Amino acid sequence: MTVREIIEGHPRQSSLARDLTFRCIDNCFDCAATCISCADACLGEADVLELVRCVRLNLDCADVCDAVGRVVTRQTETDIGVVRAAIEACLVTCRECAEECERHAVHHDHCRACAKVCRSCEQACSDLLASIG
Amino acid sequence: MTVREIIEGHPRQSSLARDLTFRCIDNCFDCAATCISCADACLGEADVLELVRCVRLNLDCADVCDAVGRVVTRQTETDIGVVRAAIEACLVTCRECAEECERHAVHHDHCRACAKVCRSCEQACSDLLASIG
Amino acid sequence: MTVREIIEGHPRQSSLARDLTFRCIDNCFDCAATCISCADACLGEADVLELVRCVRLNLDCADVCDAVGRVVTRQTETDIGVVRAAIEACLVTCRECAEECERHAVHHDHCRACAKVCRSCEQACSDLLASIG
Amino acid sequence: MTVREIIEGHPRQSSLARDLTFRCIDNCFDCAATCISCADACLGEADVLELVRCVRLNLDCADVCDAVGRVVTRQTETDIGVVRAAIEACLVTCRECAEECERHAVHHDHCRACAKVCRSCEQACSDLLASIG
Repeated sequence: MTVREIIEGHPRQSSLARDLTFRCIDNCFDCAATCISCADACLGEADVLELVRCVRLNLDCADVCDAVGRVVTRQTETDIGVVRAAIEACLVTCRECAEECERHAVHHDHCRACAKVCRSCEQACSDLLASIG
Repeated sequence: MTVREIIEGHPRQSSLARDLTFRCIDNCFDCAATCISCADACLGEADVLELVRCVRLNLDCADVCDAVGRVVTRQTETDIGVVRAAIEACLVTCRECAEECERHAVHHDHCRACAKVCRSCEQACSDLLASIG
Repeated sequence: MTVREIIEGHPRQSSLARDLTFRCIDNCFDCAATCISCADACLGEADVLELVRCVRLNLDCADVCDAVGRVVTRQTETDIGVVRAAIEACLVTCRECAEECERHAVHHDHCRACAKVCRSCEQACSDLLASIG
Repeated sequence: MTVREIIEGHPRQSSLARDLTFRCIDNCFDCAATCISCADACLGEADVLELVRCVRLNLDCADVCDAVGRVVTRQTETDIGVVRAAIEACLVTCRECAEECERHAVHHDHCRACAKVCRSCEQACSDLLASIG
Protein backbone atom coordinates (compact mmCIF):
# COMPACT_ATOMS: atom_id res chain seq x y z
CA MET A 1 0.00 0.00 0.00
CA THR A 2 1.49 3.29 -1.16
CA VAL A 3 -0.44 5.22 1.52
CA ARG A 4 1.71 3.52 4.17
CA GLU A 5 4.88 4.66 2.37
CA ILE A 6 3.58 8.23 2.10
CA ILE A 7 2.60 8.39 5.77
CA GLU A 8 6.00 7.02 6.84
CA GLY A 9 7.72 9.92 5.03
CA HIS A 10 5.03 12.49 5.86
CA PRO A 11 6.21 16.01 6.82
CA ARG A 12 3.81 16.07 9.79
CA GLN A 13 3.25 13.39 12.39
CA SER A 14 -0.16 12.79 13.91
CA SER A 15 -0.14 11.45 17.47
CA LEU A 16 -2.04 8.29 16.48
CA ALA A 17 -0.34 4.89 16.87
CA ARG A 18 1.29 4.21 13.50
CA ASP A 19 0.54 0.49 12.98
CA LEU A 20 -3.04 0.73 14.23
CA THR A 21 -3.56 3.69 11.90
CA PHE A 22 -2.29 1.72 8.89
CA ARG A 23 -4.53 -1.21 9.77
CA CYS A 24 -7.55 1.06 10.15
CA ILE A 25 -6.92 2.78 6.78
CA ASP A 26 -6.41 -0.54 4.96
CA ASN A 27 -9.56 -1.96 6.49
CA CYS A 28 -11.73 1.11 5.82
CA PHE A 29 -10.90 1.29 2.11
CA ASP A 30 -11.09 -2.50 1.68
CA CYS A 31 -14.45 -2.59 3.48
CA ALA A 32 -15.83 0.28 1.36
CA ALA A 33 -14.98 -1.54 -1.88
CA THR A 34 -16.26 -4.87 -0.56
CA CYS A 35 -19.60 -3.37 0.53
CA ILE A 36 -20.07 -1.73 -2.90
CA SER A 37 -19.49 -5.15 -4.43
CA CYS A 38 -21.75 -7.03 -2.00
CA ALA A 39 -24.62 -4.53 -2.49
CA ASP A 40 -24.28 -5.03 -6.24
CA ALA A 41 -24.17 -8.84 -5.98
CA CYS A 42 -27.25 -8.79 -3.70
CA LEU A 43 -29.02 -6.61 -6.26
CA GLY A 44 -28.26 -9.22 -8.93
CA GLU A 45 -29.71 -12.13 -6.91
CA ALA A 46 -33.14 -13.65 -7.70
CA ASP A 47 -34.05 -13.34 -4.00
CA VAL A 48 -33.19 -9.62 -3.79
CA LEU A 49 -36.42 -9.02 -1.80
CA GLU A 50 -34.83 -10.99 1.07
CA LEU A 51 -31.69 -8.88 0.80
CA VAL A 52 -33.13 -5.35 0.96
CA ARG A 53 -31.81 -4.63 4.45
CA CYS A 54 -28.43 -6.06 3.44
CA VAL A 55 -28.18 -3.78 0.38
CA ARG A 56 -29.16 -0.77 2.47
CA LEU A 57 -26.56 -1.46 5.16
CA ASN A 58 -23.90 -2.26 2.53
CA LEU A 59 -24.48 1.16 0.95
CA ASP A 60 -24.29 2.93 4.33
CA CYS A 61 -21.17 0.98 5.27
CA ALA A 62 -19.45 1.76 1.95
CA ASP A 63 -20.11 5.49 2.33
CA VAL A 64 -19.09 5.67 5.99
CA CYS A 65 -15.94 3.52 5.54
CA ASP A 66 -14.83 5.59 2.55
CA ALA A 67 -15.25 8.90 4.43
CA VAL A 68 -13.57 7.57 7.58
CA GLY A 69 -10.73 6.04 5.56
CA ARG A 70 -10.08 9.51 4.14
CA VAL A 71 -10.19 11.17 7.59
CA VAL A 72 -7.78 8.64 9.14
CA THR A 73 -5.43 8.82 6.14
CA ARG A 74 -4.87 12.55 6.64
CA GLN A 75 -1.97 13.32 8.99
CA THR A 76 -1.75 17.10 8.71
CA GLU A 77 -3.32 18.96 11.66
CA THR A 78 -5.24 15.93 12.92
CA ASP A 79 -8.17 16.76 15.23
CA ILE A 80 -8.47 13.86 17.67
CA GLY A 81 -12.13 14.61 18.45
CA VAL A 82 -13.07 14.37 14.78
CA VAL A 83 -11.04 11.18 14.31
CA ARG A 84 -12.63 9.58 17.38
CA ALA A 85 -16.20 10.39 16.31
CA ALA A 86 -15.49 9.19 12.77
CA ILE A 87 -14.02 5.87 13.93
CA GLU A 88 -16.92 5.31 16.32
CA ALA A 89 -19.41 5.79 13.47
CA CYS A 90 -17.41 3.39 11.33
CA LEU A 91 -17.25 0.78 14.08
CA VAL A 92 -21.04 0.86 14.62
CA THR A 93 -21.82 0.75 10.89
CA CYS A 94 -19.43 -2.16 10.24
CA ARG A 95 -20.91 -4.12 13.15
CA GLU A 96 -24.51 -3.70 11.97
CA CYS A 97 -23.58 -4.50 8.37
CA ALA A 98 -21.63 -7.59 9.48
CA GLU A 99 -24.60 -8.84 11.54
CA GLU A 100 -26.94 -8.52 8.57
CA CYS A 101 -24.48 -10.11 6.11
CA GLU A 102 -23.98 -13.01 8.53
CA ARG A 103 -27.72 -13.78 8.29
CA HIS A 104 -27.28 -14.46 4.57
CA ALA A 105 -23.85 -16.10 4.72
CA VAL A 106 -25.20 -19.66 4.26
CA HIS A 107 -27.03 -18.74 1.04
CA HIS A 108 -24.68 -16.17 -0.47
CA ASP A 109 -20.88 -16.37 -0.58
CA HIS A 110 -20.63 -12.60 -1.16
CA CYS A 111 -22.43 -11.95 2.14
CA ARG A 112 -20.15 -14.40 3.94
CA ALA A 113 -17.05 -12.72 2.48
CA CYS A 114 -18.40 -9.23 3.17
CA ALA A 115 -19.29 -10.07 6.78
CA LYS A 116 -15.70 -11.16 7.37
CA VAL A 117 -14.30 -7.91 5.97
CA CYS A 118 -16.77 -5.84 8.04
CA ARG A 119 -15.78 -7.69 11.22
CA SER A 120 -12.11 -7.07 10.47
CA CYS A 121 -12.80 -3.34 9.96
CA GLU A 122 -14.89 -3.21 13.15
CA GLN A 123 -11.92 -4.69 15.04
CA ALA A 124 -9.40 -2.32 13.44
CA CYS A 125 -11.60 0.65 14.42
CA SER A 126 -12.03 -0.70 17.94
CA ASP A 127 -8.25 -1.15 18.36
CA LEU A 128 -7.41 2.33 17.07
CA LEU A 129 -10.14 3.82 19.25
CA ALA A 130 -8.77 2.05 22.34
CA SER A 131 -5.31 3.48 21.64
CA ILE A 132 -6.72 7.03 21.51
CA GLY A 133 -8.36 6.65 24.91
CA MET B 1 -35.31 19.83 -3.24
CA THR B 2 -36.44 16.72 -5.12
CA VAL B 3 -35.21 14.45 -2.31
CA ARG B 4 -37.98 15.86 -0.09
CA GLU B 5 -40.59 15.00 -2.73
CA ILE B 6 -39.20 11.46 -3.10
CA ILE B 7 -39.16 10.83 0.65
CA GLU B 8 -42.74 12.12 1.01
CA GLY B 9 -43.92 9.51 -1.50
CA HIS B 10 -41.48 6.82 -0.36
CA PRO B 11 -42.80 3.21 -0.15
CA ARG B 12 -41.20 2.75 3.28
CA GLN B 13 -41.36 5.10 6.24
CA SER B 14 -38.45 5.45 8.62
CA SER B 15 -39.34 6.34 12.21
CA LEU B 16 -37.31 9.56 12.12
CA ALA B 17 -39.10 12.94 12.49
CA ARG B 18 -39.85 14.04 8.92
CA ASP B 19 -39.05 17.78 9.05
CA LEU B 20 -35.89 17.33 11.10
CA THR B 21 -34.78 14.67 8.63
CA PHE B 22 -35.29 17.02 5.66
CA ARG B 23 -33.39 19.78 7.42
CA CYS B 24 -30.50 17.43 8.26
CA ILE B 25 -30.27 16.14 4.66
CA ASP B 26 -30.36 19.66 3.18
CA ASN B 27 -27.70 20.85 5.60
CA CYS B 28 -25.41 17.84 5.13
CA PHE B 29 -25.28 18.14 1.34
CA ASP B 30 -25.04 21.94 1.43
CA CYS B 31 -22.23 21.76 3.99
CA ALA B 32 -20.35 19.14 1.95
CA ALA B 33 -20.39 21.36 -1.15
CA THR B 34 -19.52 24.48 0.85
CA CYS B 35 -16.54 22.80 2.54
CA ILE B 36 -15.22 21.58 -0.84
CA SER B 37 -15.44 25.18 -2.05
CA CYS B 38 -13.88 26.72 1.08
CA ALA B 39 -10.96 24.24 1.01
CA ASP B 40 -10.36 25.20 -2.61
CA ALA B 41 -10.59 28.95 -1.92
CA CYS B 42 -8.16 28.58 1.04
CA LEU B 43 -5.78 26.69 -1.27
CA GLY B 44 -5.90 29.63 -3.70
CA GLU B 45 -5.01 32.25 -1.05
CA ALA B 46 -1.54 33.80 -0.78
CA ASP B 47 -1.58 33.02 2.98
CA VAL B 48 -2.40 29.32 2.51
CA LEU B 49 0.24 28.43 5.14
CA GLU B 50 -2.03 30.07 7.75
CA LEU B 51 -4.97 28.04 6.45
CA VAL B 52 -3.56 24.51 6.53
CA ARG B 53 -5.68 23.38 9.47
CA CYS B 54 -8.73 24.99 7.83
CA VAL B 55 -8.20 23.09 4.55
CA ARG B 56 -7.72 19.83 6.45
CA LEU B 57 -10.91 20.24 8.48
CA ASN B 58 -12.84 21.40 5.38
CA LEU B 59 -11.83 18.19 3.61
CA ASP B 60 -12.82 16.03 6.58
CA CYS B 61 -16.11 17.90 6.95
CA ALA B 62 -16.96 17.55 3.24
CA ASP B 63 -16.35 13.79 3.32
CA VAL B 64 -18.25 13.18 6.56
CA CYS B 65 -21.22 15.42 5.61
CA ASP B 66 -21.52 13.75 2.22
CA ALA B 67 -21.53 10.23 3.71
CA VAL B 68 -23.95 11.18 6.50
CA GLY B 69 -26.24 12.99 4.03
CA ARG B 70 -26.45 9.73 2.08
CA VAL B 71 -27.17 7.65 5.22
CA VAL B 72 -29.93 10.02 6.43
CA THR B 73 -31.47 10.25 2.93
CA ARG B 74 -32.06 6.48 2.82
CA GLN B 75 -35.45 5.49 4.28
CA THR B 76 -35.54 1.77 3.49
CA GLU B 77 -34.73 -0.45 6.51
CA THR B 78 -33.21 2.38 8.54
CA ASP B 79 -30.93 1.22 11.38
CA ILE B 80 -31.28 3.79 14.17
CA GLY B 81 -27.92 2.89 15.74
CA VAL B 82 -26.12 3.55 12.47
CA VAL B 83 -28.01 6.81 11.90
CA ARG B 84 -27.26 8.01 15.44
CA ALA B 85 -23.52 7.28 15.19
CA ALA B 86 -23.35 8.91 11.76
CA ILE B 87 -25.10 12.10 12.92
CA GLU B 88 -22.90 12.31 16.00
CA ALA B 89 -19.78 12.13 13.82
CA CYS B 90 -21.22 14.82 11.55
CA LEU B 91 -22.08 17.09 14.48
CA VAL B 92 -18.55 16.87 15.92
CA THR B 93 -16.88 17.42 12.54
CA CYS B 94 -19.08 20.43 11.67
CA ARG B 95 -18.39 21.99 15.08
CA GLU B 96 -14.60 21.66 14.77
CA CYS B 97 -14.63 22.92 11.18
CA ALA B 98 -16.84 25.89 12.15
CA GLU B 99 -14.49 26.82 15.01
CA GLU B 100 -11.49 26.82 12.69
CA CYS B 101 -13.29 28.75 9.92
CA GLU B 102 -14.41 31.34 12.48
CA ARG B 103 -10.73 32.06 13.27
CA HIS B 104 -10.24 33.22 9.66
CA ALA B 105 -13.65 34.89 9.15
CA VAL B 106 -12.27 38.43 9.48
CA HIS B 107 -9.69 37.89 6.74
CA HIS B 108 -11.56 35.55 4.39
CA ASP B 109 -15.22 35.81 3.37
CA HIS B 110 -15.27 32.16 2.30
CA CYS B 111 -14.31 31.09 5.82
CA ARG B 112 -17.01 33.32 7.28
CA ALA B 113 -19.64 31.90 4.91
CA CYS B 114 -18.44 28.33 5.50
CA ALA B 115 -18.49 28.71 9.28
CA LYS B 116 -22.13 29.77 9.10
CA VAL B 117 -23.08 26.74 7.01
CA CYS B 118 -21.15 24.39 9.35
CA ARG B 119 -22.94 25.87 12.40
CA SER B 120 -26.31 25.38 10.69
CA CYS B 121 -25.45 21.75 9.92
CA GLU B 122 -24.21 21.20 13.48
CA GLN B 123 -27.59 22.48 14.75
CA ALA B 124 -29.60 20.36 12.29
CA CYS B 125 -27.67 17.26 13.42
CA SER B 126 -28.14 18.17 17.07
CA ASP B 127 -31.90 18.61 16.61
CA LEU B 128 -32.35 15.33 14.73
CA LEU B 129 -30.21 13.55 17.32
CA ALA B 130 -32.34 14.95 20.17
CA SER B 131 -35.50 13.68 18.46
CA ILE B 132 -34.05 10.14 18.24
CA GLY B 133 -33.30 10.09 21.97
CA MET C 1 -26.24 28.34 -2.43
CA THR C 2 -23.18 29.34 -0.45
CA VAL C 3 -20.86 27.80 -3.06
CA ARG C 4 -21.93 30.52 -5.50
CA GLU C 5 -21.03 33.20 -2.96
CA ILE C 6 -17.64 31.60 -2.30
CA ILE C 7 -16.81 31.30 -6.00
CA GLU C 8 -17.81 34.94 -6.62
CA GLY C 9 -15.26 36.06 -4.02
CA HIS C 10 -12.68 33.39 -4.88
CA PRO C 11 -8.99 34.46 -4.94
CA ARG C 12 -8.46 32.63 -8.25
CA GLN C 13 -10.62 32.79 -11.36
CA SER C 14 -11.05 29.75 -13.58
CA SER C 15 -11.67 30.50 -17.27
CA LEU C 16 -15.04 28.69 -17.25
CA ALA C 17 -18.24 30.69 -17.92
CA ARG C 18 -19.50 31.71 -14.47
CA ASP C 19 -23.26 31.18 -14.79
CA LEU C 20 -22.94 27.87 -16.63
CA THR C 21 -20.50 26.73 -13.95
CA PHE C 22 -22.96 27.57 -11.15
CA ARG C 23 -25.76 25.77 -12.96
CA CYS C 24 -23.57 22.69 -13.50
CA ILE C 25 -22.51 22.58 -9.82
CA ASP C 26 -26.10 22.99 -8.57
CA ASN C 27 -27.33 20.29 -10.91
CA CYS C 28 -24.53 17.81 -10.12
CA PHE C 29 -25.04 17.94 -6.36
CA ASP C 30 -28.84 17.96 -6.66
CA CYS C 31 -28.72 15.00 -9.05
CA ALA C 32 -26.36 13.06 -6.77
CA ALA C 33 -28.74 13.44 -3.80
CA THR C 34 -31.80 12.67 -5.93
CA CYS C 35 -30.25 9.47 -7.35
CA ILE C 36 -29.31 8.28 -3.84
CA SER C 37 -32.94 8.82 -2.86
CA CYS C 38 -34.42 7.18 -5.99
CA ALA C 39 -32.17 4.11 -5.61
CA ASP C 40 -33.37 3.80 -2.02
CA ALA C 41 -37.05 4.24 -2.94
CA CYS C 42 -36.69 1.62 -5.72
CA LEU C 43 -35.11 -0.74 -3.19
CA GLY C 44 -38.16 -0.28 -0.94
CA GLU C 45 -40.68 -1.14 -3.69
CA ALA C 46 -42.45 -4.51 -3.87
CA ASP C 47 -41.46 -4.77 -7.56
CA VAL C 48 -37.75 -4.17 -6.92
CA LEU C 49 -36.91 -7.01 -9.34
CA GLU C 50 -38.23 -4.80 -12.17
CA LEU C 51 -36.08 -1.92 -10.93
CA VAL C 52 -32.66 -3.57 -10.71
CA ARG C 53 -31.22 -1.71 -13.70
CA CYS C 54 -32.69 1.53 -12.33
CA VAL C 55 -31.03 1.07 -8.92
CA ARG C 56 -27.71 0.25 -10.59
CA LEU C 57 -27.77 3.35 -12.80
CA ASN C 58 -28.96 5.53 -9.89
CA LEU C 59 -25.93 4.41 -7.87
CA ASP C 60 -23.54 5.07 -10.77
CA CYS C 61 -25.14 8.45 -11.43
CA ALA C 62 -24.94 9.50 -7.76
CA ASP C 63 -21.24 8.63 -7.58
CA VAL C 64 -20.32 10.28 -10.88
CA CYS C 65 -22.38 13.45 -10.22
CA ASP C 66 -20.88 13.83 -6.76
CA ALA C 67 -17.30 13.51 -8.05
CA VAL C 68 -17.92 15.83 -11.00
CA GLY C 69 -19.70 18.38 -8.80
CA ARG C 70 -16.54 18.47 -6.66
CA VAL C 71 -14.25 18.87 -9.70
CA VAL C 72 -16.34 21.70 -11.20
CA THR C 73 -16.65 23.46 -7.81
CA ARG C 74 -12.87 23.81 -7.51
CA GLN C 75 -11.55 27.02 -9.10
CA THR C 76 -7.89 26.90 -8.09
CA GLU C 77 -5.56 25.77 -10.91
CA THR C 78 -8.37 24.33 -13.02
CA ASP C 79 -7.23 21.81 -15.67
CA ILE C 80 -9.61 22.17 -18.61
CA GLY C 81 -8.86 18.68 -19.95
CA VAL C 82 -9.84 17.12 -16.61
CA VAL C 83 -12.98 19.26 -16.36
CA ARG C 84 -14.03 18.38 -19.91
CA ALA C 85 -13.59 14.62 -19.41
CA ALA C 86 -15.41 14.77 -16.08
CA ILE C 87 -18.39 16.67 -17.52
CA GLU C 88 -18.60 14.29 -20.50
CA ALA C 89 -18.77 11.31 -18.15
CA CYS C 90 -21.46 13.07 -16.12
CA LEU C 91 -23.50 13.91 -19.22
CA VAL C 92 -23.46 10.28 -20.44
CA THR C 93 -24.32 8.86 -17.02
CA CYS C 94 -27.19 11.31 -16.45
CA ARG C 95 -28.61 10.53 -19.91
CA GLU C 96 -28.58 6.76 -19.38
CA CYS C 97 -30.01 7.07 -15.87
CA ALA C 98 -32.76 9.42 -17.14
CA GLU C 99 -33.71 6.98 -19.91
CA GLU C 100 -34.04 4.12 -17.44
CA CYS C 101 -35.99 6.20 -14.89
CA GLU C 102 -38.36 7.35 -17.66
CA ARG C 103 -39.28 3.70 -18.28
CA HIS C 104 -40.67 3.50 -14.72
CA ALA C 105 -42.12 7.02 -14.50
CA VAL C 106 -45.73 5.88 -14.96
CA HIS C 107 -45.53 3.45 -12.06
CA HIS C 108 -43.19 5.28 -9.68
CA ASP C 109 -43.25 9.00 -8.89
CA HIS C 110 -39.66 8.87 -7.59
CA CYS C 111 -38.46 7.63 -10.99
CA ARG C 112 -40.43 10.38 -12.74
CA ALA C 113 -38.94 13.04 -10.44
CA CYS C 114 -35.44 11.57 -10.73
CA ALA C 115 -35.61 11.41 -14.54
CA LYS C 116 -36.41 15.12 -14.62
CA VAL C 117 -33.44 15.99 -12.41
CA CYS C 118 -31.11 13.78 -14.49
CA ARG C 119 -32.29 15.47 -17.72
CA SER C 120 -31.66 18.89 -16.16
CA CYS C 121 -28.14 17.84 -15.13
CA GLU C 122 -27.48 16.36 -18.59
CA GLN C 123 -28.45 19.73 -20.11
CA ALA C 124 -26.33 21.74 -17.65
CA CYS C 125 -23.32 19.54 -18.48
CA SER C 126 -23.99 19.85 -22.20
CA ASP C 127 -24.19 23.66 -21.97
CA LEU C 128 -21.00 23.98 -19.92
CA LEU C 129 -19.22 21.58 -22.29
CA ALA C 130 -20.31 23.63 -25.33
CA SER C 131 -18.91 26.78 -23.73
CA ILE C 132 -15.50 25.11 -23.21
CA GLY C 133 -15.29 24.15 -26.88
CA MET D 1 -8.86 -8.41 -2.53
CA THR D 2 -12.31 -9.59 -1.50
CA VAL D 3 -13.95 -7.70 -4.38
CA ARG D 4 -12.27 -10.12 -6.80
CA GLU D 5 -13.71 -13.09 -4.91
CA ILE D 6 -17.19 -11.54 -4.92
CA ILE D 7 -17.09 -10.79 -8.64
CA GLU D 8 -15.89 -14.33 -9.44
CA GLY D 9 -19.00 -15.73 -7.72
CA HIS D 10 -21.34 -12.92 -8.85
CA PRO D 11 -24.88 -13.91 -9.95
CA ARG D 12 -24.60 -11.71 -13.05
CA GLN D 13 -21.74 -11.49 -15.52
CA SER D 14 -20.81 -8.20 -17.18
CA SER D 15 -19.28 -8.53 -20.64
CA LEU D 16 -16.04 -6.79 -19.58
CA ALA D 17 -12.77 -8.73 -19.68
CA ARG D 18 -12.40 -10.18 -16.19
CA ASP D 19 -8.67 -9.69 -15.48
CA LEU D 20 -8.58 -6.17 -16.93
CA THR D 21 -11.63 -5.31 -14.82
CA PHE D 22 -9.92 -6.54 -11.63
CA ARG D 23 -6.80 -4.57 -12.45
CA CYS D 24 -8.81 -1.42 -13.12
CA ILE D 25 -10.77 -1.73 -9.85
CA ASP D 26 -7.59 -2.36 -7.81
CA ASN D 27 -5.86 0.60 -9.42
CA CYS D 28 -8.81 3.00 -9.06
CA PHE D 29 -9.24 2.40 -5.33
CA ASP D 30 -5.49 2.37 -4.68
CA CYS D 31 -5.05 5.61 -6.65
CA ALA D 32 -7.94 7.29 -4.80
CA ALA D 33 -6.36 6.52 -1.40
CA THR D 34 -2.88 7.49 -2.60
CA CYS D 35 -4.08 10.85 -3.95
CA ILE D 36 -5.87 11.63 -0.66
CA SER D 37 -2.59 10.92 1.10
CA CYS D 38 -0.41 12.90 -1.34
CA ALA D 39 -2.73 15.95 -1.16
CA ASP D 40 -2.46 15.79 2.62
CA ALA D 41 1.34 15.42 2.59
CA CYS D 42 1.64 18.36 0.14
CA LEU D 43 -0.56 20.42 2.49
CA GLY D 44 1.85 19.65 5.33
CA GLU D 45 4.95 20.79 3.43
CA ALA D 46 6.66 24.13 4.10
CA ASP D 47 6.65 24.84 0.35
CA VAL D 48 2.88 24.22 -0.02
CA LEU D 49 2.63 27.35 -2.22
CA GLU D 50 4.64 25.48 -4.88
CA LEU D 51 2.28 22.50 -4.57
CA VAL D 52 -1.12 24.18 -5.00
CA ARG D 53 -1.74 22.71 -8.45
CA CYS D 54 -0.60 19.30 -7.17
CA VAL D 55 -3.06 19.39 -4.25
CA ARG D 56 -5.87 20.44 -6.56
CA LEU D 57 -5.23 17.64 -9.07
CA ASN D 58 -4.75 15.11 -6.25
CA LEU D 59 -8.20 16.00 -4.91
CA ASP D 60 -9.81 15.73 -8.36
CA CYS D 61 -8.02 12.45 -9.02
CA ALA D 62 -9.12 10.98 -5.67
CA ASP D 63 -12.76 11.87 -6.31
CA VAL D 64 -12.82 10.63 -9.90
CA CYS D 65 -10.92 7.39 -9.16
CA ASP D 66 -13.23 6.60 -6.23
CA ALA D 67 -16.38 7.13 -8.33
CA VAL D 68 -15.01 5.18 -11.29
CA GLY D 69 -13.80 2.36 -9.04
CA ARG D 70 -17.38 2.04 -7.77
CA VAL D 71 -18.85 2.06 -11.33
CA VAL D 72 -16.40 -0.60 -12.59
CA THR D 73 -16.92 -2.77 -9.47
CA ARG D 74 -20.65 -3.08 -10.17
CA GLN D 75 -21.49 -6.07 -12.41
CA THR D 76 -25.28 -6.01 -12.34
CA GLU D 77 -26.87 -4.50 -15.49
CA THR D 78 -23.64 -2.87 -16.65
CA ASP D 79 -24.13 -0.03 -19.17
CA ILE D 80 -21.08 -0.07 -21.45
CA GLY D 81 -21.53 3.59 -22.47
CA VAL D 82 -21.42 4.71 -18.85
CA VAL D 83 -18.42 2.51 -18.08
CA ARG D 84 -16.55 3.79 -21.14
CA ALA D 85 -17.14 7.48 -20.31
CA ALA D 86 -16.20 6.89 -16.66
CA ILE D 87 -12.93 5.14 -17.55
CA GLU D 88 -12.03 7.85 -20.06
CA ALA D 89 -12.49 10.53 -17.39
CA CYS D 90 -10.35 8.49 -14.99
CA LEU D 91 -7.61 8.00 -17.57
CA VAL D 92 -7.41 11.75 -18.32
CA THR D 93 -7.44 12.73 -14.64
CA CYS D 94 -4.75 10.20 -13.68
CA ARG D 95 -2.54 11.36 -16.55
CA GLU D 96 -2.77 15.05 -15.59
CA CYS D 97 -2.22 14.29 -11.92
CA ALA D 98 0.77 12.07 -12.74
CA GLU D 99 2.35 14.81 -14.87
CA GLU D 100 2.02 17.34 -12.05
CA CYS D 101 3.30 14.93 -9.38
CA GLU D 102 6.30 14.09 -11.59
CA ARG D 103 7.29 17.78 -11.51
CA HIS D 104 7.76 17.52 -7.73
CA ALA D 105 9.15 13.98 -7.59
CA VAL D 106 12.75 15.10 -6.99
CA HIS D 107 11.78 17.18 -3.96
CA HIS D 108 8.98 15.10 -2.47
CA ASP D 109 8.89 11.31 -2.15
CA HIS D 110 5.10 11.35 -1.77
CA CYS D 111 4.76 12.99 -5.20
CA ARG D 112 7.13 10.44 -6.73
CA ALA D 113 5.17 7.57 -5.20
CA CYS D 114 1.83 9.11 -6.17
CA ALA D 115 2.92 9.72 -9.78
CA LYS D 116 3.79 6.04 -10.09
CA VAL D 117 0.37 4.95 -8.81
CA CYS D 118 -1.40 7.43 -11.13
CA ARG D 119 0.56 6.12 -14.14
CA SER D 120 -0.38 2.56 -13.22
CA CYS D 121 -4.06 3.53 -12.97
CA GLU D 122 -3.87 5.42 -16.27
CA GLN D 123 -2.50 2.25 -17.92
CA ALA D 124 -5.12 0.00 -16.32
CA CYS D 125 -7.87 2.33 -17.59
CA SER D 126 -6.30 2.46 -21.04
CA ASP D 127 -6.10 -1.35 -21.25
CA LEU D 128 -9.71 -1.88 -20.10
CA LEU D 129 -10.88 0.82 -22.51
CA ALA D 130 -9.03 -0.85 -25.43
CA SER D 131 -10.75 -4.17 -24.62
CA ILE D 132 -14.19 -2.52 -24.76
CA GLY D 133 -13.51 -1.07 -28.22
